[in-house]
Amino acid sequence: METITPTCGALEQALMQRASVRQYDGRPVSDDLLNRLFTAAARTQTMGNLQLYSAIVTRDAAQKAALAPAHFNQPMVTGAPVVVTFCADYRRTTDWCLQRKAHPGYDNFLSFVNAATDALLFCQSFCTLAEAEGLGLCYLGTTIYQPHTIIDVLRLPRLVMPVATITLGWPAGEAPLSDRLPATAFVHHEHYAQPTPESIDRDYGPREALEENRRFCRINHTETLAQIFTDIRYTREACEAMSVTLLDALRRQGFMAD
Amino acid sequence: METITPTCGALEQALMQRASVRQYDGRPVSDDLLNRLFTAAARTQTMGNLQLYSAIVTRDAAQKAALAPAHFNQPMVTGAPVVVTFCADYRRTTDWCLQRKAHPGYDNFLSFVNAATDALLFCQSFCTLAEAEGLGLCYLGTTIYQPHTIIDVLRLPRLVMPVATITLGWPAGEAPLSDRLPATAFVHHEHYAQPTPESIDRDYGPREALEENRRFCRINHTETLAQIFTDIRYTREACEAMSVTLLDALRRQGFMAD
Repeated sequence: METITPTCGALEQALMQRASVRQYDGRPVSDDLLNRLFTAAARTQTMGNLQLYSAIVTRDAAQKAALAPAHFNQPMVTGAPVVVTFCADYRRTTDWCLQRKAHPGYDNFLSFVNAATDALLFCQSFCTLAEAEGLGLCYLGTTIYQPHTIIDVLRLPRLVMPVATITLGWPAGEAPLSDRLPATAFVHHEHYAQPTPESIDRDYGPREALEENRRFCRINHTETLAQIFTDIRYTREACEAMSVTLLDALRRQGFMAD
Repeated sequence: METITPTCGALEQALMQRASVRQYDGRPVSDDLLNRLFTAAARTQTMGNLQLYSAIVTRDAAQKAALAPAHFNQPMVTGAPVVVTFCADYRRTTDWCLQRKAHPGYDNFLSFVNAATDALLFCQSFCTLAEAEGLGLCYLGTTIYQPHTIIDVLRLPRLVMPVATITLGWPAGEAPLSDRLPATAFVHHEHYAQPTPESIDRDYGPREALEENRRFCRINHTETLAQIFTDIRYTREACEAMSVTLLDALRRQGFMAD
């Protein structure tokens, strides 16, 4: 049995207790602190050391109000002291190349995925650091649902695409911990092990039995927890419509050849 | 000026010293340790708490040898005790829905991006924990360049797509630290600030002046560092060809409607 280092142990403990924080108190989050966390997060691995990302910090109330509809008006957007939008960014690298007698060819889908990967890894390192500092944050998956609004509000040029947003501040009160699937559900050895009826019952049963999830089904008049996802939260119709919007935004930002 | 908590301070310090590790000594990495790190990493935020990812652990020498060509035969793949392939996974969630009288509609592009996002955030949390524990790792961006081979070797079913690979082990010796751009290059306030000739010189100048990068240009007979990227490492032709391959793999795995 390996021993766990103090840093890993402290981080493990912090992660096991983390929860999304949606309510913040009035204490300010300084630019000094943000820059310190951004600088450390930028040590994260990045493709060819190109750092294919940008982070847009929103503090202005009017800007937050303009972003809110793109995030289905979730109250954290206007309620948080800071909103950070993480973007896949090949603009800066492309401009650097053009200024240095090089001929960049990054207006394609592979380059978008490379840049999105860089941006998401950077984002998660930033989140881990911020939470270790005691900040609370909520990750908004809505960023890719209505990207056109975000692109307009943040004035993102061609080859810059928003991929993640967090709201950030000092937590007001305790946030509820949510459950997670056991590692057996998502760790595979050598080959992908297809889920079986038994493994699904084993991995999802405890979650389905939670009183909060049973209540959730009663309120929404569904027979199963899975139906909450398929019939209400992430329906086929919505996913298909938003796929069209997302591909359209990627085209607009120059990442999809026609 | 805020104080920095001990956990954040230790993590910040660890990140500032981190480097990709490509050579490993013979000490084994136990499944107990991996499971502990996977379990803590799974506390990372995830869309609707669905945990749209899987991690495939490769230890078998024949499996590593089969994966190696997909990673341009970089020696870390066969040289590391453990290779982990992180996958965007809507298969398990879809099977759960089908088993619970729900009608999933996740065979579309938006759902791929949602799952890839989950997988990459989870991957980065795992990497941060592993490095805090003293493990060394190298992130292989090649995962999305030749995904078909990886899909075959790991037997990934429909709705599972590889998005990241790391090689992992206990470091043999010191790994060289690479430089990073200053935060001014990638942090923006309120709106995206277009790069200017002056900001590019300011942000990229120190990197271009490094002796190792000047030597790199001499060896490759390029006038500028940027030309290394555009003419040798990530050419337009390669990026465009790999975009076709990647979209084809997404179609094969069921994530692109035709």
